[in-house]
Amino acid sequence: MTHEPAAPPGTTVSQLSETELLDAFLPGATTDGPHVLVGPGDDCAVIAAPGERVVVTTDTLTVDQDFATVWPCGYRTTGADVGHKCAAQNLADIAAMGAVPTAMVVSLTMPGDTQVAWVAEFAAGLSRAFGELGAAECALVGGDLGWGRELSVTATVLGRLEGEPVLRSGAGRGGTLVHVGVLGRAAAGLDALQTPVPGRWDGVPEPERTALHRAQLRPAPPVSVGAELARAGAIAMLDISDGLLRDVRRIARASGVSIDLDPQALEPAVHTLAHAGEAVGVDPWQWVLTGGEDHGLLAVLPVDSPLPSGVRAIGSCAPLPREDGPRGGGSSAGNGARQRRHERGTVTIAGRSPRQWFGRDVVEGWDHFEP
Amino acid sequence: MTHEPAAPPGTTVSQLSETELLDAFLPGATTDGPHVLVGPGDDCAVIAAPGERVVVTTDTLTVDQDFATVWPCGYRTTGADVGHKCAAQNLADIAAMGAVPTAMVVSLTMPGDTQVAWVAEFAAGLSRAFGELGAAECALVGGDLGWGRELSVTATVLGRLEGEPVLRSGAGRGGTLVHVGVLGRAAAGLDALQTPVPGRWDGVPEPERTALHRAQLRPAPPVSVGAELARAGAIAMLDISDGLLRDVRRIARASGVSIDLDPQALEPAVHTLAHAGEAVGVDPWQWVLTGGEDHGLLAVLPVDSPLPSGVRAIGSCAPLPREDGPRGGGSSAGNGARQRRHERGTVTIAGRSPRQWFGRDVVEGWDHFEP
Repeated sequence: MTHEPAAPPGTTVSQLSETELLDAFLPGATTDGPHVLVGPGDDCAVIAAPGERVVVTTDTLTVDQDFATVWPCGYRTTGADVGHKCAAQNLADIAAMGAVPTAMVVSLTMPGDTQVAWVAEFAAGLSRAFGELGAAECALVGGDLGWGRELSVTATVLGRLEGEPVLRSGAGRGGTLVHVGVLGRAAAGLDALQTPVPGRWDGVPEPERTALHRAQLRPAPPVSVGAELARAGAIAMLDISDGLLRDVRRIARASGVSIDLDPQALEPAVHTLAHAGEAVGVDPWQWVLTGGEDHGLLAVLPVDSPLPSGVRAIGSCAPLPREDGPRGGGSSAGNGARQRRHERGTVTIAGRSPRQWFGRDVVEGWDHFEP
Repeated sequence: MTHEPAAPPGTTVSQLSETELLDAFLPGATTDGPHVLVGPGDDCAVIAAPGERVVVTTDTLTVDQDFATVWPCGYRTTGADVGHKCAAQNLADIAAMGAVPTAMVVSLTMPGDTQVAWVAEFAAGLSRAFGELGAAECALVGGDLGWGRELSVTATVLGRLEGEPVLRSGAGRGGTLVHVGVLGRAAAGLDALQTPVPGRWDGVPEPERTALHRAQLRPAPPVSVGAELARAGAIAMLDISDGLLRDVRRIARASGVSIDLDPQALEPAVHTLAHAGEAVGVDPWQWVLTGGEDHGLLAVLPVDSPLPSGVRAIGSCAPLPREDGPRGGGSSAGNGARQRRHERGTVTIAGRSPRQWFGRDVVEGWDHFEP
C-alpha cells in the first residue's frame, strides 16, 4: 500500500475518484495476515483454508436501522464506531462456529457528502477491532466502495476450523449451558443513547453512561473463546445477537432439548446494571434476559468439561423425548419439519416458564418470538 | 427447506417477520451443492475449499446507482433481473481469477414496502443465474435480510482454484490478448433503457432493443471459461466491468506491458451494434471500446496457446523495459510505487494512441481514467 497525503479536512467522498478513495481507505486497514495469499487489488483475494474447509458469514449495518448518525442523547457515531461494530458482529458469528477468523471483505455504500475522514476512520476502526477482539489472524482483503442515498456497510468474514464446526443443533444429548461475554449492557446502552439529554438517564453518572454507550456502539464479543469452547468439547454454540432468552430458545429448538437457566448465575450481570436500572426505571433483568447485540457466546458443553477462562455455567440442557416435546403434539402431516422447528425445545428459568418466573411478560410479544 | 404457501399477492416485506421472509426467500434458492458442508441456518455456512485455498470477492448493487426501479424507457426492473445481475458480476470476478464459483452469501437491504414476491423472484433469479452462466457448482449458503430506505444488495462469492490464481499483474513476459463474451452491448442497452419512449431509440426494432436491454439487465459473463483460460495457460486476466480500454489499461499497468489492440478483431462486435448505433446517433466503436458491465473476460495467453472455444485474439501484449516505460520517467523518490502503478503500461490501437486512432477523444476524460 502506498500512503497518500490525507485529503484536506472536510473533503467529501464525492470529490474523489474511487482510486483516490481507496488510497484514503487502505492505509488505515490491516490488509495482510498469515492467511492472505493474494490481498486487495485484483478481481478477488485468495485466502488460505487449512483443512480444506472455510466458514463464511455476512452481516449488514444500515444507518437509522443499526446505528444513528446522531443519537437522541447527542452522541455522534464515528466511522471507527461503525467499523468496530461491523467487525464485531461478523467476527462473533465466526467464533460461534468454533472457528478462527482469517479474512474479511467489506462493501461500503455511502452518500456523496460522507467525509473522507469518516471513511478512513471506518477502515481503522475495523482493523483495530481485529486486534482488540481477539481476531489477530484476520485481515481485510478486499471490498467495494460505492454510492447510495444512505450509509450501509456489509462485511463478509471467512474463518478456519480446527475440528468440526459447532452448530446450534448439536445439543441433543444435553449438558451444561455456558456463557462468555456481557449480558444486557448493549441494550442498556441503546436505551441511554436513545434518551434525550436532559432526561431519564440524568441520574446515572457520566462514566457509567459512557461505558454503556460503548457497549452498544462497540460490542466486545470474546472472539478467541469460540475456538477454545470448541476445543473444550462444545456440542452447540451461537452468539447472542437477539437476547439471551431468544437465543437460548434457538439452541433448544434446533437441538430439540429443554434448557433451564439458573437465575443465580445471571445475578452478577444483573448486578452491574442494577444502579442504572433503578435510576431510569427499568428492571435490569429485562436487559439481561432480552437485550440483544452483546454478541457474547452461548454454548452447551458436556457436563464434566472444564470451563475455559471467563466462561460461566448459566444453566443446564437436557434431551427431550424424540417426538414428544411438551409443545410438540401439534405436528400435522405434511408440515412436520416446520412444526418441529417451531414447536420443540423449551426454555425455563429455575424450572418455570420465563413469564411465570418473571411474574409478567418478559417482553411484550415473547410468545410470538420466532426461533 | 420447508415450502410455505406463498404470501398473498401484494404482501410487503414489512408485513412479515424475518423468519417468514426467509421462508419466502429460501424455497426459490439453490442452497445445496457439491461444496456445501453446512448450509444456511446456523451462524455461518461451512464450504469445502479444495487445495486449502479459497478465492473471495464482494460486490454491491444499489438502486438508482446500478439499476432503476423504473427506467426512463418504461421498463420495470424485476427481482429476477437484480438477482441475475448480482450473481453475474460476482461470478465474473471469480472466473477472472481462473477459479470455479462454489458458494455465495447475500445481504439484501430493502424498504418495508418491497413486495414479498419481488424478494422471492430475486432469490430465484440469483439461483437460476448459477446454471445459466456456467456456475453449476455454486450454491447460496447464507445471508442477511434487513431494512433500509433504499434497496441494496451485496453478494460475496467464494471459489476454488485448480492451479495458481491468474492475476492482472502476470502479463510481464507478453503474449496474445484474448477476449470472450460480448463488448459494448450492456452500454448500448443502458442507453436504450435510459431513453424515454417515444425517443431516439424508436428506429431500432423492438426485438433488438429488448435484446440490448437484456444485455444491461442480465449480463452473461462466460463464467466457466475462466478456469478454461487458466488451464490454457493464461498469465493475466480480469473481467471487463468498466470498458475494454480501461480494463486493458489495468492489465497493462499492473503488468508493466504495452498492449496493442487489433481493430479488425473488434469489428464483429462493432458490427452487431452498427444498426442500433446508426439509428440512435452513436458510433458503435464508442460502445465497444468504452462500454462497461458486459463482464466478458480479458486475458493474456502465451503466443502459442490454443484458444478455448469462444475465445478470440484481440491484440498483442509486449514487455516494457523495466524502468523505462514511455511515460515512466516521472517516478520520483519516495513515491515510486504509485508512480509505477499509475504511469507504466500503455495501450494502443493498431499502434496508435486511442485518441489518434479514433480521431478524437474516445470518451470525455479518457486521459483522467484511473487504472
